[in-house]
Amino acid sequence: MSDFERFKEIQKKQKAYALVLGVTNWDSHTEAPKECFPYRSEMLSIISGESFSLSTSEEYKTLVNDLMNQREELNDYQRKEIEKAKKNLDKIDKIPKSEYIEYVRLQTMAQRVWEEAREEEDFNKFKPYLEKLISYQKKMVAYRSDTDTPYNVLLDDFEEGMDMEKYDAFFTTIKEDLVPFVKEVLAKKPKETPAFIHKSYPVENQRKFVEYLLDVFHYNLDRGLLKESVHPFTWNTHSKDVRLTVRYLKDYVFSSIFAAIHELGHALYEQQVDEMFDMTNLKSGASMGIHESQSRFYENILGRSKAFWEVHFPKLKTMFPDQLKDVTLEDFYKGINWVDETFIRVEADELTYPLHILLRYELERAIFNDGLSVEDLPAMWNDKIKSYLNIDVDKPSNGILQDVHWSGGMFGYFPTYALGSAYAAQIYYTMIEDIDFEALIKANKIDKINTWLKEKIHCFGSSLKPEEILVKVTGEAFDPSYYIRYLKEKYSKLYLE
Amino acid sequence: MSDFERFKEIQKKQKAYALVLGVTNWDSHTEAPKECFPYRSEMLSIISGESFSLSTSEEYKTLVNDLMNQREELNDYQRKEIEKAKKNLDKIDKIPKSEYIEYVRLQTMAQRVWEEAREEEDFNKFKPYLEKLISYQKKMVAYRSDTDTPYNVLLDDFEEGMDMEKYDAFFTTIKEDLVPFVKEVLAKKPKETPAFIHKSYPVENQRKFVEYLLDVFHYNLDRGLLKESVHPFTWNTHSKDVRLTVRYLKDYVFSSIFAAIHELGHALYEQQVDEMFDMTNLKSGASMGIHESQSRFYENILGRSKAFWEVHFPKLKTMFPDQLKDVTLEDFYKGINWVDETFIRVEADELTYPLHILLRYELERAIFNDGLSVEDLPAMWNDKIKSYLNIDVDKPSNGILQDVHWSGGMFGYFPTYALGSAYAAQIYYTMIEDIDFEALIKANKIDKINTWLKEKIHCFGSSLKPEEILVKVTGEAFDPSYYIRYLKEKYSKLYLE
Repeated sequence: MSDFERFKEIQKKQKAYALVLGVTNWDSHTEAPKECFPYRSEMLSIISGESFSLSTSEEYKTLVNDLMNQREELNDYQRKEIEKAKKNLDKIDKIPKSEYIEYVRLQTMAQRVWEEAREEEDFNKFKPYLEKLISYQKKMVAYRSDTDTPYNVLLDDFEEGMDMEKYDAFFTTIKEDLVPFVKEVLAKKPKETPAFIHKSYPVENQRKFVEYLLDVFHYNLDRGLLKESVHPFTWNTHSKDVRLTVRYLKDYVFSSIFAAIHELGHALYEQQVDEMFDMTNLKSGASMGIHESQSRFYENILGRSKAFWEVHFPKLKTMFPDQLKDVTLEDFYKGINWVDETFIRVEADELTYPLHILLRYELERAIFNDGLSVEDLPAMWNDKIKSYLNIDVDKPSNGILQDVHWSGGMFGYFPTYALGSAYAAQIYYTMIEDIDFEALIKANKIDKINTWLKEKIHCFGSSLKPEEILVKVTGEAFDPSYYIRYLKEKYSKLYLE
Repeated sequence: MSDFERFKEIQKKQKAYALVLGVTNWDSHTEAPKECFPYRSEMLSIISGESFSLSTSEEYKTLVNDLMNQREELNDYQRKEIEKAKKNLDKIDKIPKSEYIEYVRLQTMAQRVWEEAREEEDFNKFKPYLEKLISYQKKMVAYRSDTDTPYNVLLDDFEEGMDMEKYDAFFTTIKEDLVPFVKEVLAKKPKETPAFIHKSYPVENQRKFVEYLLDVFHYNLDRGLLKESVHPFTWNTHSKDVRLTVRYLKDYVFSSIFAAIHELGHALYEQQVDEMFDMTNLKSGASMGIHESQSRFYENILGRSKAFWEVHFPKLKTMFPDQLKDVTLEDFYKGINWVDETFIRVEADELTYPLHILLRYELERAIFNDGLSVEDLPAMWNDKIKSYLNIDVDKPSNGILQDVHWSGGMFGYFPTYALGSAYAAQIYYTMIEDIDFEALIKANKIDKINTWLKEKIHCFGSSLKPEEILVKVTGEAFDPSYYIRYLKEKYSKLYLE
């Protein structure tokens, strides 16, 4: 057996562990009964440990390092597989197994405590866990790198090629170009929210409408599944098993609908990755940022367009005739693009959304780079949201305790959300030069848009880096000005004309 | 670390594998999208292989054998754990890993082929797989034992302590005492099936009624879950995660209801095992037979009693007012205990059910002990069902291809179904001397019956052997005459008086 074949054999075993761990987590998030968790988390820590041992075994390390040295002899995809394996290996190589397992346990515990703390509006309950998670992350970074900018290491983990310098430039654009525009819009928008937004929409028909959307977007149910969970998410093992969840809020139908379209964006991406990558480490989307560009493209650029609702608003009206009586398409379009000063990121409109991310980026940067203490976090959070959106946080669940990410030890993840939205805009301006986007939507031919994205982005899985994809698709490196342009064009028309 | 502690550590790892494999199989049977299976079965064979390696490692074998030799120094439960581990080890010890993995793959394939063959009514399609499964089983038995009665080995696998001699005695009783009685009943029963049995019952309300039953039976939803699947089943990892599935047939509501109560019997058993066994190999039910005694006790002795429907028939009527208009409790009681000559075991009534098992026992016995060839199986099946129930098999799905078990390589399993029904009757006659069974049902206090079974049977998990449980509960060894008595009492009253 050649080195490469032996490497592939171990990789396959890693994927086997990922599959059973993944399915078990899917189960945990969607339906497992609440009393099963103490037993289950103990069992999962054992299997995670086995997987960790495999991925840090001497044999595997030697193979990866040897193959890295001979990588010029491999073909293009094989070389990319080895490079990715090497990168992943370097991340965990020097972490002692016992600490790794301890960290997995801490994450599980911290998530539960965060849930309780949020429910009880008690930041102090979560505080010691957040402190531990941060110091763990700092320790982990120190194991792998002797950098004096640990946040850069985390940023690169979630988006290869990104660092503080690049993000600073991006967020400066947002701060200087977007924040004043948002304030202008907010000042001029009508005072009253359209009444139909928060009417009561029976869940049963919400479910039916979302099932209708699966069809509209050509999501393949032979390779996927729609289910419900508290926080919507997409999950996949390979291109032939890509699932999504939504939740149905009786008093906020648009949350269900747009969360569904958002997750559909992620799911279509994964279903369209070429199946030749299924058994490799190149099988998933290219990066968090590119992934988010797809979900936010489908959700906002496509899903909140007037063209889309020209086709599908009549259908929605037949399902909710009372709630949408006398609502015109124009009203509806304005309603689903309603801009507002709100506390909660996941419910924020497209325009104020990046300000929520800006805030998180600044806090994380301060924590990891400037030694900001957890003690001072809530006040800083509240100051910033006041300064960007002029609102006063009334309780921790509307501020510091609103997001799950930190409780899972994920620092450096948030910025990819804004980055993804910006990628999406840049890709969009290329797309409309190539195909008649609006006409396709009006002809209910979203499969043609899927195909365009498949051929330009999806099919490559993670065999290309984010930057490579952008250049390949748009002919340019990342340029945030498209994002600002897109937002200004759309929201000027809606609110300033 | 002592030998016992090290043994426990490996056991825990085995349980961790069992958990992730179990959850993945649960997913496969309930919701996984159809295109995911080729990838998934490859991954599962790897993890099964890992688990197999662990359970046959030199270290583990040495530990188990050493601890067996020192078992007098252990406490009672520890000793039982070691004895069970030793028994399990002996089952797989001498099987080469490659053959084991090949066998796991064969099972997966055979099940899919069986499904197709059944759909296409083509026994020849399944025949080569069935032949392979049988010769594999013979080979496996030969690895572990040099017995000249391989079927005894398989029978003991599913019900410790049982062999052909004991089953022969049991089935002779059935053949001699029950078959003539069944023929008498069938000759005298009214010609026309009550019309309400096969009316159309909307699935939505079937679902609601089954949810109502969960409550009635005090099934704990914090430790479980109800879901749908093609074949109803119960599945558990430990006492705090015990799930069941049902399927809803529009034209056969009683199939849904009694399958649900049957699975509830299994599930209540597992939920009531003492949690001190959760991390041990004594954590599940005592045996297939004892398990089936519980499911059939709840389904038939309790669930098809008049007392039960005195309480719950009014509720059912409110859910299906049109279908059950003019149906009296007496009509209903007769209808749910309708005796008939039918092809399908899982739909058979309580009285003819053991004849379906008798047939399977005789065939399996002939295959493994007398060299009956697969070629001759269908004809023999058809002859026997003709002789016991006087019906002519019209297609393979009504005969040889109806059950999933053989396609999973499970030979020796069927007899436990009849045995369980017989255990149930024996336990029942003890129970009614101890508590007022009928009064409790009429007072809707099934929790009291659960508690009786918990204290007498469930709490012990598999720390007691089937025979030990029977003696402990009833004061006697297994005696099939209770079963015959129970059936004759009930069905004489229904059909012969």
